[in-house]
Amino acid sequence: MAKIAVLGAGIMATALTFPAADNGNVINLIGTHLDDEIIDSIKADGTHPVLGLKVPETVKAFYFTEAAEAVKDADIIMSGVNSFGVEWAGEQLAKLARPGQIILSITKGMRADEDGTLHILPDVLKAKMGPLADQVDWAAIVGPSIAGELAVHHLTCVTFCAEKQEIAEKLAALYRTDYYHVWTSTDFIGNEVGSCMKNIFAFGGGFAPGMLKKMGKENDKYVMYNYAAALFGEGARELKQMVVLMGGDPLVTENLGGVGDMFVTTMGGRNVRAGTYVGEGVPFSEIRNVKMKGVTLEGVAAIGVVGEAVEKLTDRGVISADDFPLVRALYRIVAHDAPLDLPWSTFFGGER
Amino acid sequence: MAKIAVLGAGIMATALTFPAADNGNVINLIGTHLDDEIIDSIKADGTHPVLGLKVPETVKAFYFTEAAEAVKDADIIMSGVNSFGVEWAGEQLAKLARPGQIILSITKGMRADEDGTLHILPDVLKAKMGPLADQVDWAAIVGPSIAGELAVHHLTCVTFCAEKQEIAEKLAALYRTDYYHVWTSTDFIGNEVGSCMKNIFAFGGGFAPGMLKKMGKENDKYVMYNYAAALFGEGARELKQMVVLMGGDPLVTENLGGVGDMFVTTMGGRNVRAGTYVGEGVPFSEIRNVKMKGVTLEGVAAIGVVGEAVEKLTDRGVISADDFPLVRALYRIVAHDAPLDLPWSTFFGGER
Repeated sequence: MAKIAVLGAGIMATALTFPAADNGNVINLIGTHLDDEIIDSIKADGTHPVLGLKVPETVKAFYFTEAAEAVKDADIIMSGVNSFGVEWAGEQLAKLARPGQIILSITKGMRADEDGTLHILPDVLKAKMGPLADQVDWAAIVGPSIAGELAVHHLTCVTFCAEKQEIAEKLAALYRTDYYHVWTSTDFIGNEVGSCMKNIFAFGGGFAPGMLKKMGKENDKYVMYNYAAALFGEGARELKQMVVLMGGDPLVTENLGGVGDMFVTTMGGRNVRAGTYVGEGVPFSEIRNVKMKGVTLEGVAAIGVVGEAVEKLTDRGVISADDFPLVRALYRIVAHDAPLDLPWSTFFGGER
Repeated sequence: MAKIAVLGAGIMATALTFPAADNGNVINLIGTHLDDEIIDSIKADGTHPVLGLKVPETVKAFYFTEAAEAVKDADIIMSGVNSFGVEWAGEQLAKLARPGQIILSITKGMRADEDGTLHILPDVLKAKMGPLADQVDWAAIVGPSIAGELAVHHLTCVTFCAEKQEIAEKLAALYRTDYYHVWTSTDFIGNEVGSCMKNIFAFGGGFAPGMLKKMGKENDKYVMYNYAAALFGEGARELKQMVVLMGGDPLVTENLGGVGDMFVTTMGGRNVRAGTYVGEGVPFSEIRNVKMKGVTLEGVAAIGVVGEAVEKLTDRGVISADDFPLVRALYRIVAHDAPLDLPWSTFFGGER
């Protein structure tokens, strides 16, 4: 049993309170300044309005103004904000955290320096925490996990990674249930990079359905799974390439943190929906500014970060111009309104 | 331009005549003794009755009794029978083929000796051909390819593998079109093993939908993609493990011949349908004998072959009892009517 403070009351952070609460942990769920309506609702009748479910009875909700109180005795602070709020979360943790606590990150993405050097998000959190960064333990959760499915106790398998194996195992024991299976890993980089890259490639999961819709063939006997599967294969290849480039263990890519996670993310969600518009022929600027105005698109944001970094790393000679052809193509679509015309012959090392 | 004789008029063999015909190759499509109705239909008005499409005008259909005439001038003989007919096909090729011809196999599966030693299907064909086996060239097509999608010219990416690189390239050039992208490989074993294993794991793609149906939750807001993704991940892991065990290149597993192919096969088809019944709780013997009586289930057949071999290889100490936990679980379901109760904690090297 542990005391867990959760910073951010989004659907994934909240869903993770279900197995944690089932195991008797004490959980304080803290909304950010953007989550006041969610906290209002949970305080009123226990319902998370986006998840559409009542949170476990033992979970206590806090407004952000109450964060200090909610965090002070915690053994674990989960950083549950989305990828747009990581720097902000790091600044808050710098003020709220204490030496000896475990910081458990669930946010997926990467950040890049001006020269294209990429960083996993736990490192972005760390950079905001100054000397405290070395006085806490670092861990993260990755793997195929749709929040609502976990919350309704549908079977879910994930990896808890940490810099120290004993920290990963300690956390795993706190969260593991008969519906939530947890493996552990010290391959922080491989798992984090995989989780970012799968969001990038899931965007392409919408292309084939969109193209079929445009052609009026969405209900035809033969649809376009061959297309989707080829994209999935090239995505798996480039995911691994990035894991290796960043210094992670390539083995991660074929398990939960790689193709498993990419599989679930390709099945649906906001990024796939945005990709469907691309398949229909809508320029990405129109998707961003009109069709899906105001909708958070973490996968698209990751394409922006990684796509730009890939170009800079190419200029610097760190990678070859032939590397990451799918990332580059997706980047042209989201950053330059390029039409959907994938360079198939450049995939899988070049058609030959 | 080449002369291609196709032995077997099933949907995949027939679909492959579309890109080949578009490139001006001369194609003789030969039905087996089980394909007379298909050949009747094509001879009458060009329609393949199962595919539901007219075959290319230049494709000439032959009854099996006309096989000798159809094959004699061919540069290439495609062996297009399903996995149940491979030995039969080998016997026919032994009589029909001539030195210098290329045998192009599209059948997926494996065979096992009494002691559990597994063999790829081209080797099964070879074994039936005697000395002629060394006087022809061997090649195969693998990768995510739903027949009907290819036939209607939806984008498809595949790998042509051959024992000799120049043979793979020669064939690729004959089939490559703007909708049919072809890569080449000399990793015959890795590609063939991957293609067999993906059929095995695709069976599991039906489990989650079946379980939801049984619970009356198939139209719920939250379904079971986490479950399907975890299965996909473990499938990818065991697919690679088998490729390595058989001596193939593990790199194949993350590309078209591995996860790409597994993705498309998981999206639907007869094996997934059979898996759905398993998810609903139907004993497999009832699926085989009642629910899907007479339906060809190649993936299930592969589970039988590989599952039994895995047990024998374990007895002989070739592999560990901890290896291939998903293959073993699927085998218990199809061979011993075991209920669907997957040993999740044994997956991914063991939950820890």
